[in-house]
Amino acid sequence: MSKSSAGNFLEDFAAGQVINHATPRTVTAGDAALYTALYGVRIVLQSSETFARASGLHRVPLDDWLVFHIVFGKTVPDISLNAVANLGYAEGRFGVPVYAGDTLNAVSEVIGLKENSNGKTGVVYVRTRGLNQNGQEVLSYVRWVMVRKRDAASVIDGHPPPDLADHVAAESISPGAVPDMINFDFAASGEAHRWGDYAAGECIDHMDGMTVEEAEHQLATRLYQNTARVHFNQFAESQGRFGKRLIYGGHVISLARALSFNGLANAVKVVALNGGRHVAPLFAGDTVFAWSEVLETAGIAGRDDAGLLRLRMIATKDHPCADFPRPDQNDSVILDLDMWVAVPR
Amino acid sequence: MSKSSAGNFLEDFAAGQVINHATPRTVTAGDAALYTALYGVRIVLQSSETFARASGLHRVPLDDWLVFHIVFGKTVPDISLNAVANLGYAEGRFGVPVYAGDTLNAVSEVIGLKENSNGKTGVVYVRTRGLNQNGQEVLSYVRWVMVRKRDAASVIDGHPPPDLADHVAAESISPGAVPDMINFDFAASGEAHRWGDYAAGECIDHMDGMTVEEAEHQLATRLYQNTARVHFNQFAESQGRFGKRLIYGGHVISLARALSFNGLANAVKVVALNGGRHVAPLFAGDTVFAWSEVLETAGIAGRDDAGLLRLRMIATKDHPCADFPRPDQNDSVILDLDMWVAVPR
Amino acid sequence: MSKSSAGNFLEDFAAGQVINHATPRTVTAGDAALYTALYGVRIVLQSSETFARASGLHRVPLDDWLVFHIVFGKTVPDISLNAVANLGYAEGRFGVPVYAGDTLNAVSEVIGLKENSNGKTGVVYVRTRGLNQNGQEVLSYVRWVMVRKRDAASVIDGHPPPDLADHVAAESISPGAVPDMINFDFAASGEAHRWGDYAAGECIDHMDGMTVEEAEHQLATRLYQNTARVHFNQFAESQGRFGKRLIYGGHVISLARALSFNGLANAVKVVALNGGRHVAPLFAGDTVFAWSEVLETAGIAGRDDAGLLRLRMIATKDHPCADFPRPDQNDSVILDLDMWVAVPR
Repeated sequence: MSKSSAGNFLEDFAAGQVINHATPRTVTAGDAALYTALYGVRIVLQSSETFARASGLHRVPLDDWLVFHIVFGKTVPDISLNAVANLGYAEGRFGVPVYAGDTLNAVSEVIGLKENSNGKTGVVYVRTRGLNQNGQEVLSYVRWVMVRKRDAASVIDGHPPPDLADHVAAESISPGAVPDMINFDFAASGEAHRWGDYAAGECIDHMDGMTVEEAEHQLATRLYQNTARVHFNQFAESQGRFGKRLIYGGHVISLARALSFNGLANAVKVVALNGGRHVAPLFAGDTVFAWSEVLETAGIAGRDDAGLLRLRMIATKDHPCADFPRPDQNDSVILDLDMWVAVPR
Repeated sequence: MSKSSAGNFLEDFAAGQVINHATPRTVTAGDAALYTALYGVRIVLQSSETFARASGLHRVPLDDWLVFHIVFGKTVPDISLNAVANLGYAEGRFGVPVYAGDTLNAVSEVIGLKENSNGKTGVVYVRTRGLNQNGQEVLSYVRWVMVRKRDAASVIDGHPPPDLADHVAAESISPGAVPDMINFDFAASGEAHRWGDYAAGECIDHMDGMTVEEAEHQLATRLYQNTARVHFNQFAESQGRFGKRLIYGGHVISLARALSFNGLANAVKVVALNGGRHVAPLFAGDTVFAWSEVLETAGIAGRDDAGLLRLRMIATKDHPCADFPRPDQNDSVILDLDMWVAVPR
Repeated sequence: MSKSSAGNFLEDFAAGQVINHATPRTVTAGDAALYTALYGVRIVLQSSETFARASGLHRVPLDDWLVFHIVFGKTVPDISLNAVANLGYAEGRFGVPVYAGDTLNAVSEVIGLKENSNGKTGVVYVRTRGLNQNGQEVLSYVRWVMVRKRDAASVIDGHPPPDLADHVAAESISPGAVPDMINFDFAASGEAHRWGDYAAGECIDHMDGMTVEEAEHQLATRLYQNTARVHFNQFAESQGRFGKRLIYGGHVISLARALSFNGLANAVKVVALNGGRHVAPLFAGDTVFAWSEVLETAGIAGRDDAGLLRLRMIATKDHPCADFPRPDQNDSVILDLDMWVAVPR
């Protein structure tokens, strides 16, 4: 039997199946430096040891989305090597902070499975948990992926996914997940805006644009040990659907998050991923822009130093966002993400 | 009011104004590794812990120009987001060594301000200081930048800049700023040349050339958290002055410094930036070459292990430097820098 | 006399000459992170601190080929700056593990020298040793390189190279060079294959392909402080043999090794480099594929937890390896490497 693997197909999944993903990863200051070089993030909490300690953390934490990408990357060889599309996210929660030196693992449970009517593909729902070396949860989220069948004739034992929350309830967010913001240093963070300065319905154009190069997204995606083939193999992709390499959707999330510093510099911590959709693909040479809408504001029980903003963060390609383009109105939209972030009051 | 910012214009500056720049940065071995990958520096002092300790340092220090770029980067959102051009540097001094784990801050004082006769732009002079977590100065320098006015009709309260020194006086350089070179290991450093082997007027062709890619300068400039828009946004720049992204001038300094290893391997420490000018822009695809002229040699009070060289380092694009091209004679010149370096006697 | 150097020519070498190469290098977690980003390696031993400790190591070791590239890079300014071609390797052994914080040095002895019949070039044979800060050997290998003569008329004092072993004898490999595999975690490593599952003659297609960008190989080669001119200078290479920059051969080794995870995930340790040949050049834009043949299997004295596989690892460009192409049959082959790796029993 062949030693190498072409990855799992729809037939290889079963509801209730638990997959301990390979390649635990000890994260380092090297990973954090690369992340800064790849996106230009300036979030003070993860840039300054001084600020991080004043926020009650041991050291600078790794960027929330870097943690997401590393955990996500571990799931790719088992879940999405043969994915046609990454369809959505729900019920994402960021747990304990991740520091350089921590070792991250990922485990997924298959929570839903259904065949598409074309007989060639289906959708797999997994709940993935990222854990540190002490077994503490650093992240958990649900995602669903369209996966190819190995054989159109095979019969799939479908299982409906559980009802997924439209978004994480603010009151369910643990106050302990939000860093201490009592002595928040607004000069260090770069903006003066406080929680009370934001209002539901407010739209923020992040203004700047970032053009993506092939070398950049390849470096990023390999850093995450994400091996999905569509990102790396131009020889194969030249014959594929787009004729070119597809950029990992998570790269867009991190670009948009970095751009969102302009207007949301004090959103130093992502606490929940309510949902998200990669609306259209991104390719090298495209320039990414972003804007955010405040969907909701919420307090945190027992905390008068910090509050929550529920943000809809939208990224576009080759389209500046002064007109706040939405996916249903504008072909330039590539990402539509819904998340809770914590800001100082 | 909009939460995001388009940056400061000439009207936003006033003489005497002190700006505490945002985003303190804890530097790491990851930053140093990226710097090596970006430029291929081989300076032994910052490559080898063994050598650094034998030079009286605690550990390998960060590259002097990496420190410069990080401090410079912090000033960009406040000073030069709307800059038309970075005009010059003066009175630069490198202070205490920077080690992985240090947290760098930057603060600038506006020391001069004048409107240009066209009424659309002006020049801002700032003295910027980089400080570590203990408040020790790691760097200070003056730079002046051409900045756009928000409104041609507005009246600027000009203030003449102070007289700036033509170059830092050798005798004003603190002996403590120069690492111990008593047991300098010339086999480790890569060349046998000592201070006494160099003479004023000597020209050194650094021979090698380095072609720059878009991904490289973008990674570098983001690593420095420098957000100046002209470096990243091809969508906007395609309509701009050059039709393409402009490479951060500091990238050229670091390339030339790395190339200068061939002939100046023992110039392990930059102690002062006397002046400098980005003569012409660099673009991806161009190949950078460099040569240096020894302008002056000087001793260091009480030190017979080390001496100073004042170097004029010139970089070109697409023009090897065997003919020692000068800015007034040759269109290929892109950088003309004047600095003091320390070498073993 | 010129301070800068054009590198050594054939005339500059003599049999028995010992060269202490410049630029000792303290390696860091930053180097390891970049290596992951450049190749996407997933070998668990070097990814997980937990796994490394369970294998009897102090911490995660640096990738074997990263160590090779850094040692190799140090030899370039002395040995191969004027190389026409890197002809072969033999008798390579990996020694004590290298950890972040170690300082690596390289020393080479010229063991053979011969002029080519064209009078313009010759071949230099060197045995290179890489040492850590305690003088322990981390690597030793023989390589031979075709080098230009400075002057066609000069007479070379040739010296025949010693007989080089066809391959490192399995029984000569120190059991101590192989990590402890008693509690090998096959879920963490990513595959279930054990030593006994592999048989001589077995061919493994590693399936995936990786397209290389200019920025990537330049970042890699500079990270290794390898300054060979053909890799970086498009201005010069545009007039050269290929019209473009040549990719460092070691970059191909690391790409193939990373791709070989698919089928050889448990080959967590390279113990010997038996031989190797860069069959054809690689250029940016090419897509690298790889396959491996098991040439031999061998036990390790006193060890029932681990065994050795002798692998022939072949890399191609723009040619998937399902048909197991060999150099004598297929123009797409760019690398033909022979090595011993350790796997769990």
